[in-house]
Amino acid sequence: MTFDLDYLDAVAIARGVRNQQYRAQEIMEATLNRIDRHNRALNCFTTLLAEEALERAKALDRGMERGERPGTLAGVPFAVKNLFDIAGVTTVAGSKIHRSHPPARQDATAIARLKRAGAILVGALNMDEYAYGFVTENAHYGPTHNPHDLTRIAGGSSGGSAAAVAGGLVPFSLGSDTNGSIRVPAALCGVYGLKPTYGRLSRAGVKLFSSSLDHIGPFCRSVRDLATLFDILQGEDPLDPVCCTVPPEPCLPQLHQQTQSLRIAIADDYFTQGGEPEVFEAVEKVAQALGATQRVSLPEAARAREAAYLITASEGANLHLSDLKRSPQDFDPATRDRFFAGAMIPAQWYLNAQRFRRWYRDRIREVFRQVDVILAPTTPCVATPIGQTTLNIQGEEVLLRPNLGRYTQPLSFIGLPVVSVPVHRPHQLPIGVQIMAAPYNEALILRVATFLEAQGAIDISVASSQEKT
Amino acid sequence: MTFDLDYLDAVAIARGVRNQQYRAQEIMEATLNRIDRHNRALNCFTTLLAEEALERAKALDRGMERGERPGTLAGVPFAVKNLFDIAGVTTVAGSKIHRSHPPARQDATAIARLKRAGAILVGALNMDEYAYGFVTENAHYGPTHNPHDLTRIAGGSSGGSAAAVAGGLVPFSLGSDTNGSIRVPAALCGVYGLKPTYGRLSRAGVKLFSSSLDHIGPFCRSVRDLATLFDILQGEDPLDPVCCTVPPEPCLPQLHQQTQSLRIAIADDYFTQGGEPEVFEAVEKVAQALGATQRVSLPEAARAREAAYLITASEGANLHLSDLKRSPQDFDPATRDRFFAGAMIPAQWYLNAQRFRRWYRDRIREVFRQVDVILAPTTPCVATPIGQTTLNIQGEEVLLRPNLGRYTQPLSFIGLPVVSVPVHRPHQLPIGVQIMAAPYNEALILRVATFLEAQGAIDISVASSQEKT
Repeated sequence: MTFDLDYLDAVAIARGVRNQQYRAQEIMEATLNRIDRHNRALNCFTTLLAEEALERAKALDRGMERGERPGTLAGVPFAVKNLFDIAGVTTVAGSKIHRSHPPARQDATAIARLKRAGAILVGALNMDEYAYGFVTENAHYGPTHNPHDLTRIAGGSSGGSAAAVAGGLVPFSLGSDTNGSIRVPAALCGVYGLKPTYGRLSRAGVKLFSSSLDHIGPFCRSVRDLATLFDILQGEDPLDPVCCTVPPEPCLPQLHQQTQSLRIAIADDYFTQGGEPEVFEAVEKVAQALGATQRVSLPEAARAREAAYLITASEGANLHLSDLKRSPQDFDPATRDRFFAGAMIPAQWYLNAQRFRRWYRDRIREVFRQVDVILAPTTPCVATPIGQTTLNIQGEEVLLRPNLGRYTQPLSFIGLPVVSVPVHRPHQLPIGVQIMAAPYNEALILRVATFLEAQGAIDISVASSQEKT
Repeated sequence: MTFDLDYLDAVAIARGVRNQQYRAQEIMEATLNRIDRHNRALNCFTTLLAEEALERAKALDRGMERGERPGTLAGVPFAVKNLFDIAGVTTVAGSKIHRSHPPARQDATAIARLKRAGAILVGALNMDEYAYGFVTENAHYGPTHNPHDLTRIAGGSSGGSAAAVAGGLVPFSLGSDTNGSIRVPAALCGVYGLKPTYGRLSRAGVKLFSSSLDHIGPFCRSVRDLATLFDILQGEDPLDPVCCTVPPEPCLPQLHQQTQSLRIAIADDYFTQGGEPEVFEAVEKVAQALGATQRVSLPEAARAREAAYLITASEGANLHLSDLKRSPQDFDPATRDRFFAGAMIPAQWYLNAQRFRRWYRDRIREVFRQVDVILAPTTPCVATPIGQTTLNIQGEEVLLRPNLGRYTQPLSFIGLPVVSVPVHRPHQLPIGVQIMAAPYNEALILRVATFLEAQGAIDISVASSQEKT
């Protein structure tokens, strides 16, 4: 082999396959080999589809020999959080309870679209049970380890998806984000994570957590990969009633447009409190690279977070109510108790939260009349040791799990598009910065991320700590 | 005066004004005169705008003298349920509490559109407090009396709107329908009432009762009036986020298309139980006129009604929560206790009801693949005496107020378009039949109503019982 998968992104792999520089089969063999070597230490995969993946890679090679066009993602291996339906596989969504469910009959829409583009699915990835968590310390499947330091968490709930990309096991993966479940693990694992506008990518075939808050999105090693995947995943889906009918707008052609004229601001107040100094330094570093000095306040962000909790807990509990009554002992204790609390919330709290949400969405819409792009930290800290339950922020001891979503929850709450970019800090644990814009402006935030990537302000280097094992 | 307002519909009045057969001023004077004579007995109006209305009528006449076009509804007097905002008037929504609120700054969108078409607003009409009821026995403003028998209710919650049209005080009015509040009083007062598809007519400037269930619509004396008003009221409204973006489709040109090829069925099971024999006879009479013999079942209609209750009570209580805490003594006792009950509903019940609603909507959508139009009773009985609290149905004593909505609730619950037509029964109290179709098929149900009107199967004659007073 003349290539090192660690440093290739999806676009480079597909290009190499299309140019016959690599065969899909050798890409897949290297991928499976790498998974075989490192997954035991990382605990990313809960299902591995090695044989099928290898067969598909060989079939793709044969097709190319016959002159078939192999697609935008020709031969690119990928994996998905285990709440995406994979035809023939039981969708466990991080639970023990769902293990007894029948296998999915068809692939989730997102998987089907990626496969049509030539990508090859290699397996399903670990997560917090029912996506309710920020740590991926799953009681049934074990914790996922951070490739940058195996004693630390990968973040959650899409921890397996972030760690698999950060550890070089696959060039990209899919996850889901309700309150930060793509952005938090992307930041802690040092990869790119995109949470698109609410409703923009189809959730058909994805086990829901909290319907009015759930999004799906990709984890990648480069911004062009994010844009390529987003463009493939875009578009109406009759199977998903929530999926918007806004016409798809390709992001890839816009990535290299200039960013000088953009009004970029740093989120103030709430978003400059409650975190370690280094996360604010990361935001400053990104702002400097962009020449951004303006500050802007997102009013009532703390209440937005509270309201997001109430809605998540109520809607989440509602989806699992019969299991909570029938077999509470089969839940992960970490999620069970929160579901129980959610099951007892009065309708008035839920409705107040939804009413506040409309008010808050309108206020933030006004903020986006003044600025185009807003920067904020992704998490209040770097990845913490597995098992740690509290965090000391400026002398105050706070609970770790809920506080990991401090900066992400107020944004997903109203469905803003956000990309979490990893900030370059040599010899330190990864850290992420959120770049957000008004709804349907994915192209804008990816353009800003592209500029930063080109400046070297952000940088991805595949973690090598798993080599210790 | 050479005309009798009692028997003129809005289209006839506007035509007469445009043809200079009548002056708007004489139409308005006759209207105000009639209101003056009969409103004391009927108790329809809570606000009368006599001077402004007369001034507007005179201005319209002067405009016509100058050659101005007076509009589709030239000089047609109308009135609105007192939950519609009227610029300069406090919107009380049937309450005592809202009397201390400041006057509305601008007209509700529906009023503004009617005024632009030349109609002239003469006042605001009585209703159940906050639209929570089916009887219009308002503790603050007194009961509205049925023009066909002053000892009986007009129905609710848009009782004033139905009685004002039935009593000949105005040729048309606007009301709102959450669970039946247009259709029930239309049936009990013997007029036409249209509850359009959910989201099709703007609710901007209308005090909400239960946001996910509220509709607005007209009360009329003829089907062509319903169609004319619906066409004027249709169309997107940036002030109402719920107002749909489905392009307006004029109904008026479609009224006289043939109905023979339509698949028309009678709602079976639930809709043939729980009512007096005469309401089912009315449905049979309409079915016969249409040559309809097929029967169709709407699955789980009883559960749909229960779910509609839960959502109404939860959302209704939420809108009034701070007043319920601060000044419960100022509520109408009939609504207060139900709001209190609604305030204590768990979020799980509310969410289950919303989940069931999606299931039910999909099932009914399937029913409408088999049939185009469905017939059902509007109410389980004719208008009952004011003060009566129970109803004896087939030997069983049931509560009157909730049961008045028995046949209407399962339909508004999923936003179907429904017209309640009055069935001709000489020397008997009025009775109504619901004609419903799949969403966005207002033109279809109005076409069926036009056919019935032409057959004489349904007939409107203005009530004269108020002459007793």
